[in-house]
Amino acid sequence: MEQMFSKLKFITNGEGFIDISNDLNLLIKENKFCSGIINLTSLHTSCSLTINENADPNVLKDLKKYMQSIVPYDSYASLSRNKEEVFYEHYQEGADDMPAHIKTSLTNINLCLSFQKSKIILGIWQSIYLWEHRFEKKERSISVHLIGEKCPNIYNRI
Amino acid sequence: MEQMFSKLKFITNGEGFIDISNDLNLLIKENKFCSGIINLTSLHTSCSLTINENADPNVLKDLKKYMQSIVPYDSYASLSRNKEEVFYEHYQEGADDMPAHIKTSLTNINLCLSFQKSKIILGIWQSIYLWEHRFEKKERSISVHLIGEKCPNIYNRI
Amino acid sequence: MEQMFSKLKFITNGEGFIDISNDLNLLIKENKFCSGIINLTSLHTSCSLTINENADPNVLKDLKKYMQSIVPYDSYASLSRNKEEVFYEHYQEGADDMPAHIKTSLTNINLCLSFQKSKIILGIWQSIYLWEHRFEKKERSISVHLIGEKCPNIYNRI
Repeated sequence: MEQMFSKLKFITNGEGFIDISNDLNLLIKENKFCSGIINLTSLHTSCSLTINENADPNVLKDLKKYMQSIVPYDSYASLSRNKEEVFYEHYQEGADDMPAHIKTSLTNINLCLSFQKSKIILGIWQSIYLWEHRFEKKERSISVHLIGEKCPNIYNRI
Repeated sequence: MEQMFSKLKFITNGEGFIDISNDLNLLIKENKFCSGIINLTSLHTSCSLTINENADPNVLKDLKKYMQSIVPYDSYASLSRNKEEVFYEHYQEGADDMPAHIKTSLTNINLCLSFQKSKIILGIWQSIYLWEHRFEKKERSISVHLIGEKCPNIYNRI
Repeated sequence: MEQMFSKLKFITNGEGFIDISNDLNLLIKENKFCSGIINLTSLHTSCSLTINENADPNVLKDLKKYMQSIVPYDSYASLSRNKEEVFYEHYQEGADDMPAHIKTSLTNINLCLSFQKSKIILGIWQSIYLWEHRFEKKERSISVHLIGEKCPNIYNRI
């Protein structure tokens, strides 16, 4: 078994989801790993990793809306006052600061997935998402660690 | 180190839990893996994997009841109107459709567990559960991936 | 690749967080593992593992306060009656019994992290926390499983 360490960077665009499944599968292929595990860790405390439906975009919309409803923004840090008062003690970076930390701990920062034939094993309706919880555009780094068997080098045989 | 890929199928019976710990330990034993990791991925977006108490069945009952209380069913898709109105935009498969996706992201779809002496390392009160979030009976597939050392073949030595 | 199994014990002091990052890095170093994965499983059903901010202690304070707000204590088991009535069916060990099980399933019991140069790959603001959900002091065991490459033994070369 061999291993390889890498980092993937993504630019997010406010609260929402980026489907990173293809980038991860590409990394596996390019590094000629055939079967093994791909271990993912988001290196931040205000965005997460989640696996959910890739067919109807309303699933992601509802998921975001739901999370906003159970983790209210900080009205102390917020400009708007037209809502229930919420006072987090950690609010220095704005109304989305502490909510982003909470949303991160309610979902996942780490996923360990299996791959076979250079492709991550997922159901047909599943994609892997980087879930941004901050309002602003951010550069996010995901640590990607492959452990497994390399593909047999067919071209060398010719 | 060696690896092995498999899939386990379970028939669920509406919202609730199936203890899959024994099936997983059996798979490890039958494949003669001695020590390593067992990587589990639920291949669906409306059921999850969780580890919780295996002694008092009321724990699972309360866990389900709690999750129903913080993730309300869609009253638009629901027949019953006697509750707070909730309108998800993704509701095509019924009142439990979007709630099931949300519950999945609030819990886990992926667990990477360690095993030794062909047995998953868990506390005595812990079991691994497949947690069904849909109302209807479903066939569910769990990807099971073993990486580790095989057991020494004692019988061959005789 | 080699593997090693260990257990780390921690004494918690009521609801709250213990930063276990240094203990884990030390274990990797002492066992001369250079690169690989460290697989963590909390062997309990009423405490969890989470990764969150290590800079402002108010983050952990708010995180705990938030979790208490969405998972109410059992008022039936609780001495205090001055709150919304909550009746869990599993309450034998007190007002924090069932809430602790719920908080455990809403966060993580298992983390699989990558390490390189004998150090867990994390962002600079991230620490790994053991999150105690019970009121009382408890002894908690975390299963720690290392898989990876050992460090080259430099001293032997001299």
